[in-house]
Amino acid sequence: MFEKPSAIDRLLQDRESGHSLPGELYTRPDVFEADLDVMFYRHWIFIGLECDVPEPGDVSVVDIGKSSIAIIRDDDGTVRAFNNVCRHRGARLLPAGASVVGKLVCPYHQWTYELDGRLIYAPHMGKDFDVACHGLGQVTLRSVGGLLYACLSEDPPQDIQDLVDVMEPRLAPYDIRNTKIAYQADLIEDGNWKLTIENNRECYHCASNHPELCVSFIDLDFGFDPESLSDEDRLAAEKHAALYAARTAEWEALGYPSRAVEHLRGHATNFRTQRLIIANAGESQTPDARAACSKLLGTMTRKDLGDIHLWGHNSWHHFMGDHALSFMVVPLAPGKTLVRTKWLVRKDAVEGVDYDLDRLTAVWKATNDQDAHLVALAHAGASSHGYKPGPYSRFTESQLDNFMSWYVDRMKAHGFCAPVSSAQP
Amino acid sequence: MFEKPSAIDRLLQDRESGHSLPGELYTRPDVFEADLDVMFYRHWIFIGLECDVPEPGDVSVVDIGKSSIAIIRDDDGTVRAFNNVCRHRGARLLPAGASVVGKLVCPYHQWTYELDGRLIYAPHMGKDFDVACHGLGQVTLRSVGGLLYACLSEDPPQDIQDLVDVMEPRLAPYDIRNTKIAYQADLIEDGNWKLTIENNRECYHCASNHPELCVSFIDLDFGFDPESLSDEDRLAAEKHAALYAARTAEWEALGYPSRAVEHLRGHATNFRTQRLIIANAGESQTPDARAACSKLLGTMTRKDLGDIHLWGHNSWHHFMGDHALSFMVVPLAPGKTLVRTKWLVRKDAVEGVDYDLDRLTAVWKATNDQDAHLVALAHAGASSHGYKPGPYSRFTESQLDNFMSWYVDRMKAHGFCAPVSSAQP
Amino acid sequence: MFEKPSAIDRLLQDRESGHSLPGELYTRPDVFEADLDVMFYRHWIFIGLECDVPEPGDVSVVDIGKSSIAIIRDDDGTVRAFNNVCRHRGARLLPAGASVVGKLVCPYHQWTYELDGRLIYAPHMGKDFDVACHGLGQVTLRSVGGLLYACLSEDPPQDIQDLVDVMEPRLAPYDIRNTKIAYQADLIEDGNWKLTIENNRECYHCASNHPELCVSFIDLDFGFDPESLSDEDRLAAEKHAALYAARTAEWEALGYPSRAVEHLRGHATNFRTQRLIIANAGESQTPDARAACSKLLGTMTRKDLGDIHLWGHNSWHHFMGDHALSFMVVPLAPGKTLVRTKWLVRKDAVEGVDYDLDRLTAVWKATNDQDAHLVALAHAGASSHGYKPGPYSRFTESQLDNFMSWYVDRMKAHGFCAPVSSAQP
Repeated sequence: MFEKPSAIDRLLQDRESGHSLPGELYTRPDVFEADLDVMFYRHWIFIGLECDVPEPGDVSVVDIGKSSIAIIRDDDGTVRAFNNVCRHRGARLLPAGASVVGKLVCPYHQWTYELDGRLIYAPHMGKDFDVACHGLGQVTLRSVGGLLYACLSEDPPQDIQDLVDVMEPRLAPYDIRNTKIAYQADLIEDGNWKLTIENNRECYHCASNHPELCVSFIDLDFGFDPESLSDEDRLAAEKHAALYAARTAEWEALGYPSRAVEHLRGHATNFRTQRLIIANAGESQTPDARAACSKLLGTMTRKDLGDIHLWGHNSWHHFMGDHALSFMVVPLAPGKTLVRTKWLVRKDAVEGVDYDLDRLTAVWKATNDQDAHLVALAHAGASSHGYKPGPYSRFTESQLDNFMSWYVDRMKAHGFCAPVSSAQP
Repeated sequence: MFEKPSAIDRLLQDRESGHSLPGELYTRPDVFEADLDVMFYRHWIFIGLECDVPEPGDVSVVDIGKSSIAIIRDDDGTVRAFNNVCRHRGARLLPAGASVVGKLVCPYHQWTYELDGRLIYAPHMGKDFDVACHGLGQVTLRSVGGLLYACLSEDPPQDIQDLVDVMEPRLAPYDIRNTKIAYQADLIEDGNWKLTIENNRECYHCASNHPELCVSFIDLDFGFDPESLSDEDRLAAEKHAALYAARTAEWEALGYPSRAVEHLRGHATNFRTQRLIIANAGESQTPDARAACSKLLGTMTRKDLGDIHLWGHNSWHHFMGDHALSFMVVPLAPGKTLVRTKWLVRKDAVEGVDYDLDRLTAVWKATNDQDAHLVALAHAGASSHGYKPGPYSRFTESQLDNFMSWYVDRMKAHGFCAPVSSAQP
Repeated sequence: MFEKPSAIDRLLQDRESGHSLPGELYTRPDVFEADLDVMFYRHWIFIGLECDVPEPGDVSVVDIGKSSIAIIRDDDGTVRAFNNVCRHRGARLLPAGASVVGKLVCPYHQWTYELDGRLIYAPHMGKDFDVACHGLGQVTLRSVGGLLYACLSEDPPQDIQDLVDVMEPRLAPYDIRNTKIAYQADLIEDGNWKLTIENNRECYHCASNHPELCVSFIDLDFGFDPESLSDEDRLAAEKHAALYAARTAEWEALGYPSRAVEHLRGHATNFRTQRLIIANAGESQTPDARAACSKLLGTMTRKDLGDIHLWGHNSWHHFMGDHALSFMVVPLAPGKTLVRTKWLVRKDAVEGVDYDLDRLTAVWKATNDQDAHLVALAHAGASSHGYKPGPYSRFTESQLDNFMSWYVDRMKAHGFCAPVSSAQP
């Protein structure tokens, strides 16, 4: 019997704990719109870095869903975000990407705004026109150690402060505010944004797919089934676990916060951070696990303090002694997702002198390409008639289960599955 | 709280006078379909010119929304329009664009029609098959001084006669029926068709965007706020207004109708016409405002009789002594609009002898490109999360307010916002 | 008055016998989805041939709608079909097209399946994980003389047995199981899949569109109106009819089933077969109607046994002494349809020795291109505002009427037009 498509509510209710989502939650256009609305317009999202706009007048325009956000550094150094839309007839003010401006002048009818968003010129509007009521729409913005999080809702979740409290001390020695973008790459994955995030939340696929990354990255840190390992591998894993515990204690004693902090289910703002050991040479995510940049970040003096990872629901980051990596995830369509990667080095590091760009970017360029292929396979499968939600490994994929449970919770918190509305922002 | 999309009714009701439309009226696919249905299938639309089919057997196929219209000149010179669809199994009869035919033969099964639409050959249909009932579907067509207006509805608005009554005498001396198309250009703008029209209905954006056009076109004619002008500019504007009044009176006295006629709100068929002064050399919309064609149109003997502009809801035109311009607007998608421009000269004018094609087309080629850029910016803005309907200038954008009020009226006249149906065609 | 789109039920009810469908049944996205669901997921569809996977470990992946089907030959020669989706997180297992495998290994996390679909390796899933419950989803498959028919429903129509009973004896002498694919070509037609089928079910369009095919193919076999023919042509037609009757009797007497068998209205599984006379040299659908391959198929010893045609609702085939043709129709979008053509010769025939590939493929390469053009015209017309369902010729297009009546019946059998559900699979 031909059946009408299920309501999103029904799909969310059908989601079984410990399993991937019903396929239509990855593929349906209406779910995509709902994801944008709930996950991207009503939660804090990562949109860029202070170092995207290093100087007064620098602008960085980021398009997310229907929102075009202009990140602007004012003459006094303040970084703000605005809706990139003229208050006259709504023309887009600034082009996509980076630009430098003195004032913000709309190309259509020359309405002109200060860098702080105030409208200062609107000819032919008559003397009774209230310029003060027509400034640019401001977007709520928080810098977390130099990482910019925006919330497009008028009622942003309060718990962004938890992220600030956890991350500012961790990031302080890295001084991300005073980095520069050594390289930036955009990659469009042929899959749903949630599959991009799922792929990032497990390293079950690493050993057979990411030879470059596995030089420095330890897949066992994200869980394993001891019974799946050979005796030799199990001994190595136990040895690594002991080393990891010792190293964490040592780092913490030195004043470097290192233990895992998880704000997942039960929190509006999803994040997880932990200082991870880097394998082999132990310094950086490079082809030989040695530092790629000779100038260390911020006040760092050691290269062997591991890799602080930070996850959000539309980003992940790695902070190492010599460089940092920032990944932003932007849904473009149900089956198209932009992954924007930035490689950050100390502001005064010089390409060709302090670092070699190929060496700096080699591992994640390769890893991103490999992940894009996997995400495309996963999306093609989730779109299939024969797809059924499959079991997550409780050893290697518990973080996916956490993420998807959080996702369903947050959709429900914003009105899904609730005949009587009871939004909890 | 996640909200379902508003009904079109609600969007129309939300439209605030003096302001641009709620963004979704420019961008939503269902509004696009409704626009096609109401604005393009139930109103008179401009579809071309008699000179598109100068000779018997000439065909010009124009695709508008789901309609493919074949304009055909019969052997006796009559111009008719037909649905370009075979009455057998519906194959498209004639290719897009221009062709020349003796009979109309369907390429699928050779059903054959006369130029007047009668079916004359349909093999294998049996002797009881009634050929007379299977002629081509005729589309209601009116020629207004050589400009072809069609109505796809079975109940065309009666007031097309007003357009005929106003324009036939104005256009008579230009004899548009005996022009030829010196050049035709298709441009696809990345914006909604209503933004294309809005952009055409104001010259607020001209000074800073259209340097070529501003040689001959006077933006002040479309309104200004005296307080926005410098003393010098205000004096110039006042001087121009006086000149304009004098010139209009002079032209009318000579027997050339010149005053503005506006059929906007309150009329089913939207149009406005007026004879405008041409700036500087005063002759034509060319790079130096001098005539581009040495043979004048029709019975014209003077080049200094200004520019008759004519607006419709899917077209605009300029008629000058030496040449005329015709712009047709065809919606292709919510954010894609075809603007087809035709440059008309006297039928017997010879390229390279009587006119130079580059000089003839230079101003509007440049202006069209500039406008396409502005419309794209406006559409990108109207699609944005941060867009709010903005205030029209009551000095420079009153025609936009008129147009949008007319648009909302006409949508309502065709069943929107009315629980009990009361269509007024 | 603006009207909402009709429900599919309404469109099906509006279909008038003897006429092509209401236009929206060819063009609407929701009808396309319903067609996929009813016609392609709940009926037997042709998906390929045994000779697509001649050797153990050979895989052929066919994507139909949302379904990706892997046809696999096991080590013991058994051919099975599986959902091409890993049972873990649903990644697509095998790439599109042909491949050769030992085991089926998911590229994402190395879950590994036997060629018979059993899961044999799933690391890190814990010792309580039931491997036996996570084998590949099997797709119901029947081979009809080497032609593979699949049904994606759990409740496949029983009458596939009728197709087996009729075709196995007819195809036996051709031994299609032991053919090879000499050439395969994919063509994407710009039209709805039902227009592709309509176009295939009549030869009314052949004379004026298919000069190459008409050398060997006799359009009169698919009906004609005697009154449409000249006296000369009518005499030829009568002569042909007599010859045809005699030849059929002769073939049947020799033990070659030849008479027409029609399972159309009233059957879930739509097919028609008949042995047709080949014109002129009488051997094969080639440029000169002579055999293209010197090795005959199977146990055939004569080249003059005509052309067995077989129609299904997503395929058509021709079986001749020297080669066979197989056409699979896959809907890609409301107005995009894949036609995949395979030219089959005896397994041990050698290109360049036993057959010349250009000669073998010339007629249907040309015919497919011509048909693609006609289907595009028909789809453009059916999408038009001016389209009305047109009359089928009762002489030349009765098979289209049959097909469309069957289509409407089957849609109704699967829940359309029935307030109280009463599915009859």
